[in-house]
Amino acid sequence: MSAGLLVEGVILTELAQIVDERGAVLHHLRCDSADFVTFGESYFSEMLPGAVKAWKRHRSQTQYLAVPVGRVRFVIYDDRKDSPSNGSIDVVELGRPDHYNRLRIPNGLWYGFTCLSEGSALIANCADRPHDPEDAELLSDDDPSIPYRW
Amino acid sequence: MSAGLLVEGVILTELAQIVDERGAVLHHLRCDSADFVTFGESYFSEMLPGAVKAWKRHRSQTQYLAVPVGRVRFVIYDDRKDSPSNGSIDVVELGRPDHYNRLRIPNGLWYGFTCLSEGSALIANCADRPHDPEDAELLSDDDPSIPYRW
Repeated sequence: MSAGLLVEGVILTELAQIVDERGAVLHHLRCDSADFVTFGESYFSEMLPGAVKAWKRHRSQTQYLAVPVGRVRFVIYDDRKDSPSNGSIDVVELGRPDHYNRLRIPNGLWYGFTCLSEGSALIANCADRPHDPEDAELLSDDDPSIPYRW
Repeated sequence: MSAGLLVEGVILTELAQIVDERGAVLHHLRCDSADFVTFGESYFSEMLPGAVKAWKRHRSQTQYLAVPVGRVRFVIYDDRKDSPSNGSIDVVELGRPDHYNRLRIPNGLWYGFTCLSEGSALIANCADRPHDPEDAELLSDDDPSIPYRW
């Protein structure tokens, strides 16, 4: 099941968890997934308890995120001039077993995340192009231009 | 740095860990990595402490594995008739921070793995084609045809 959120282009898709007494198999992204376009890079972001990583915006790169370990809150802010959802904010919590979903964040949106679990969390990203430092813009996590306080 | 192991086609590549006080960024695979060919599916295999998942062989699928959480021992056995390394076994331990590497296991090889860490481990795989149950063969973890005891 997939669903769009408030911000245009953000998609949340339920992912399979195949339970096994030795440890679960956890889906993320396939080349035939409805929202897949191209593969650029797979990498992980470890989040220590209480940590905040924000704000970041990619000019071109689209993110495909899942949280196989721990619990993370993502916040997405739309200040795209021509967007029908300009000014909207999405707040999405990801983690097993009840919120094991794939979160697609298209390029051009500000986003950040915080670790909600008592232990460390792991975010996996399967981005549509490889990391390019020229592609990313950063703001501090308390920047007043984004109407969300961590 | 990349290195071949005993079994022909198995490649171990050192991966970057970008340390950060909020949690590290951990590389896995890029579309311009030397051993990348195509993207099929990204998924995760959780391993509870002491668990063994073995043996499996894929007719067509090649695995690109990393262990961002915990510690895992992989065992790879080559019984390919025409392989120059027929009869060889590779035993590879993956985990942070000292063995954070990408392990490429080409199709046609028997492999299995066990969790060595006190806590659960997480294996990430970025396989070259999506999961297909017809593509996988299984043997029990104590099958006498494979000269390795878990």
